[in-house]
Amino acid sequence: MDKSCLETSVSTSTIKQEYPLKIGIVGLGAFGQFLAKAFQKQGHNVLGTSRSDYSEYCKDNGIDFFRDLNGLCEAQPDVLLVCSSILSTEDVVRGIPFHKLRPDTIIADVLSVKQFAKNLLLDVVPSGFGILCTHPMFGKFSGKNSWEGLRFVFDKVRISGNSAQQRKCEQFLNIFQDEGCQMVEMSCEEHDQYAAESQFITHTVARILSNMNLESTPIDTKGYETLMQLTINTVSHGSDLYDGLFLYNVNAIKQIEKIEKAFDTVKQNLFGKLRDTLRRQIEESDSIKTTRETVPSTQFLPLSERAFKDLSSFSAVPEQTSQTSFQRETEVHHATL
Amino acid sequence: MDKSCLETSVSTSTIKQEYPLKIGIVGLGAFGQFLAKAFQKQGHNVLGTSRSDYSEYCKDNGIDFFRDLNGLCEAQPDVLLVCSSILSTEDVVRGIPFHKLRPDTIIADVLSVKQFAKNLLLDVVPSGFGILCTHPMFGKFSGKNSWEGLRFVFDKVRISGNSAQQRKCEQFLNIFQDEGCQMVEMSCEEHDQYAAESQFITHTVARILSNMNLESTPIDTKGYETLMQLTINTVSHGSDLYDGLFLYNVNAIKQIEKIEKAFDTVKQNLFGKLRDTLRRQIEESDSIKTTRETVPSTQFLPLSERAFKDLSSFSAVPEQTSQTSFQRETEVHHATL
Repeated sequence: MDKSCLETSVSTSTIKQEYPLKIGIVGLGAFGQFLAKAFQKQGHNVLGTSRSDYSEYCKDNGIDFFRDLNGLCEAQPDVLLVCSSILSTEDVVRGIPFHKLRPDTIIADVLSVKQFAKNLLLDVVPSGFGILCTHPMFGKFSGKNSWEGLRFVFDKVRISGNSAQQRKCEQFLNIFQDEGCQMVEMSCEEHDQYAAESQFITHTVARILSNMNLESTPIDTKGYETLMQLTINTVSHGSDLYDGLFLYNVNAIKQIEKIEKAFDTVKQNLFGKLRDTLRRQIEESDSIKTTRETVPSTQFLPLSERAFKDLSSFSAVPEQTSQTSFQRETEVHHATL
Repeated sequence: MDKSCLETSVSTSTIKQEYPLKIGIVGLGAFGQFLAKAFQKQGHNVLGTSRSDYSEYCKDNGIDFFRDLNGLCEAQPDVLLVCSSILSTEDVVRGIPFHKLRPDTIIADVLSVKQFAKNLLLDVVPSGFGILCTHPMFGKFSGKNSWEGLRFVFDKVRISGNSAQQRKCEQFLNIFQDEGCQMVEMSCEEHDQYAAESQFITHTVARILSNMNLESTPIDTKGYETLMQLTINTVSHGSDLYDGLFLYNVNAIKQIEKIEKAFDTVKQNLFGKLRDTLRRQIEESDSIKTTRETVPSTQFLPLSERAFKDLSSFSAVPEQTSQTSFQRETEVHHATL
């Protein structure tokens, strides 16, 4: 968070106590519920609506539940926080009955793709309303116990200066700062560039590994355990998020190309080494055959390109090999010294 | 470790105190040095030789250094532990002057590929000598502070029963057990199957990511940080290990194929979704054009297959769009209800 934000955050501490925010969450899935808890912990009022019926959950958790967006907007929240999936956000935003809201309400989002959110909100949200694009770079696993040090990215896309809207915006951002988040003010464009290079790559690796149906073995290394856990945590976010990260971030496709190229490089290196090894073995074998008929070959000679899998006969259960003896070995040893 | 091993380990505790083992390490690279420390901590004597001159290091660390294998073998270690790289092990093993060793010496290895090690040792090591194939499934990072709970795989390939050789073998294995390792007795064949499915996949993912030259961004998620650290740790083992894991484990190539297939599935899913989205947008756009000329299009229409990167105009900086107003939006909202 930049200096001005930090300064504002101090001045709004009192406001928070006296006038808690009324935060309306649109989309009460796992992430919406997760955020609601922190809002409530800090004394704010949470209202919510969702496609599914969360009335029981809301009753048990002190959230005012509304059957639809109309009801929620009639209750006039200070901040309307869109917590829907990337794929459904356009429909959700286009469905907001803005005329039922106070005309300085802040419309905020938490999508993992920010240029899309920004452009959509700028296109749909009537002037006067505030627009705050945010991305909490954590979820129910990484932020389970604490948000300390976890990154919270935000872009105050359209917040009118020196107004109640600005104070409410700072008050909303302070929730995350007070939870210990590392506040990162950044344009939506920059966010998407960085997120494609980090978050999208992580999700892609997890998706690839998930498609391999990896299983625990009796001899897992720590590295493999880490990779499996990462896969489980990442894939638990659901494929809608992953599809959204790809479809709604123009930088993502480049990263797929980069992974493809890097994988090709790895394969080329491995198969190059394989060819070199085979060539050397063929040459050694020919040389041994010519010069020392009695010395056993290295048994490394494959029959064809298709026999790559049998590259090293030492890597397989040995066939009946010639008798090995101490004498022969030491003879060979002396001969090769 | 199976029950009989556990029982033996108790009975050898006294032996260890009275007769420490003389362990000769061939290959004093990072891993050889790392193991030597634990051997010494448990009161065993460590001798060593290496291609490079480690005399200074050995002097400082209480290891008897020998310029070559001849010298080391003349000192008659109880266990000769081959700690060379996979790629150089055949030359090293063929270079052992067995006639200088006591004829019941145990030849052990710590290679990450076990069928190769087993077949090589069975082929080269004269009868009478013991053969113990092991794989400590950890390294200087994962085993930095403690070996507690880390896996140690072993296969007593050729250890004569009820003999001094057997007692020394148990004594050697007890070093790892006493350090807290989870002892896994397993055939070399099983090891290679499991290791390809876990360790090799981990190394391959790390190699791919390493080739992408990933960098830290200001908005790294915990998952991405984990992936970057895993890559750094894994790649630090050097490319010789990775090449060896591929070239000397017949199961590795199948895993490359599996990763390839899984990556293809991920890509097919993404590009399938991309096509569906484009198709839908084209249809919507046509329909809007026909029925409501006044309503703005979703601006989602790309010009060609090559325009995939411009899939969503909301993902890019918007061009001059028609005026957005509260009135128009609420009209649209009501029209779509």
